[in-house]
Amino acid sequence: MKLTSANINVMVKACRKASRYLIRDFGEIEKLQVSIKGPGDFVTSSDKKVEKIIIEELEKARPSYSILSEEIGEVNKDKEFKWIIDPIDGTSNFLHGIPHFAISIGLEHNKEIISGIIYDPIKDEMFAAEKGNGAYVNNQRIRVSSRSNLKDCIIFTGGPRANDKSKDLIFEEYKKISLKVNTAIRKLGSAALDMAYVASGRCDGFLQRNLNYWDIAAGIILVKEAGGYVTDFNGKDEYIKNKSILAANSKIIKK
Amino acid sequence: MKLTSANINVMVKACRKASRYLIRDFGEIEKLQVSIKGPGDFVTSSDKKVEKIIIEELEKARPSYSILSEEIGEVNKDKEFKWIIDPIDGTSNFLHGIPHFAISIGLEHNKEIISGIIYDPIKDEMFAAEKGNGAYVNNQRIRVSSRSNLKDCIIFTGGPRANDKSKDLIFEEYKKISLKVNTAIRKLGSAALDMAYVASGRCDGFLQRNLNYWDIAAGIILVKEAGGYVTDFNGKDEYIKNKSILAANSKIIKK
Repeated sequence: MKLTSANINVMVKACRKASRYLIRDFGEIEKLQVSIKGPGDFVTSSDKKVEKIIIEELEKARPSYSILSEEIGEVNKDKEFKWIIDPIDGTSNFLHGIPHFAISIGLEHNKEIISGIIYDPIKDEMFAAEKGNGAYVNNQRIRVSSRSNLKDCIIFTGGPRANDKSKDLIFEEYKKISLKVNTAIRKLGSAALDMAYVASGRCDGFLQRNLNYWDIAAGIILVKEAGGYVTDFNGKDEYIKNKSILAANSKIIKK
Repeated sequence: MKLTSANINVMVKACRKASRYLIRDFGEIEKLQVSIKGPGDFVTSSDKKVEKIIIEELEKARPSYSILSEEIGEVNKDKEFKWIIDPIDGTSNFLHGIPHFAISIGLEHNKEIISGIIYDPIKDEMFAAEKGNGAYVNNQRIRVSSRSNLKDCIIFTGGPRANDKSKDLIFEEYKKISLKVNTAIRKLGSAALDMAYVASGRCDGFLQRNLNYWDIAAGIILVKEAGGYVTDFNGKDEYIKNKSILAANSKIIKK
């Protein structure tokens, strides 16, 4: 069984085309990253190039859909359908030559995410999900983990970012959660892959403050379709307004 | 240019043979990890099997060398040469299906690490180094990064472990270092790969308390031969006695 809807195919095609450039540029980064200046400007141009290819491909197939993407922002057309794009999630990893980053594309229909893909080009893992049709990695069905005892769990998190105003709160939460899960916390540096890993049961939960919508859009449908639960820290689904997200198997979340 | 010494070849051969089982078992884990009990026992047996294969291969080639390995402990023979083995570094990642773990083998000569390999079977990256002959990944020369401004750096760390007595201290240090590096901290869950990533310039520094010798033995020679600096938190090289290690490019370490 696998996902074969037309919109998933459009996303996968755009993503595969863009990822060829991404991989080539990552090879260049590995040479640049030992220089003192570092590959900062190169990465920005890489990010924009990858975004351009994705948007061109998506617009070719769906000329009327609106777009929200990290670099170019909002392109408002159709009111019903909107692509939510993060051309490189885990930019800082990419910049440093750490082989852990992803392309993330979600699709909104009437303000609800109805499908999404997250692609890890280094491990060639294509995570995809569609409302009502389940979640997959490379066409294999995935499900969230079944662990119910926090002491056995691994939890992923990220942040705070450099200019974050709630740094102290985030460090406090980090310590608190660390102690609850026997200190099995990971910070891998890509929120999109963190959520894909929750969906595939590789980690049991993920939480982070102050993310952008393009970081989490595809991840939300992936976790939900894998049988998981997604909420903001107030128990609602206002991830951006409430500046927080928690995604986990449903056994370790208090509702 | 690459490393071709007989001892490196012995390590690489043992490691490649063992990694075939490791990859096969990891495939099984991915199926087991969604079950409630989880693959705990399976992982222990996998760890022991991989260790057995590595030791058999090493002993076939070097019957007289002593051994220190995570599961079986010390095997004292030759006083000059000793293999230091971690069959699966990042066991907790392996257990949860997180594709980030490694085999680590170091070689001591008269109490000094003179060569070592760290192998990531998922990405097929063989990191190897030999005293005086440099450090390599898949036969490509690697060097530590050149970043000197902490604000541009990514730092890797790990711990505290569940039963760690210095948890509070470790959380304090985590926060302190986070703020110094613009919060670009990663916790990837494998100390051996953390050190291999310092050696290849993917991260700028790594620090952790309370590691075992098999976690860091191969990493020490890799970082040194890549032009980096390795010290315990007291500025000495008593990593086990002083229960701490710091490995980084030499520009960001106060000597």
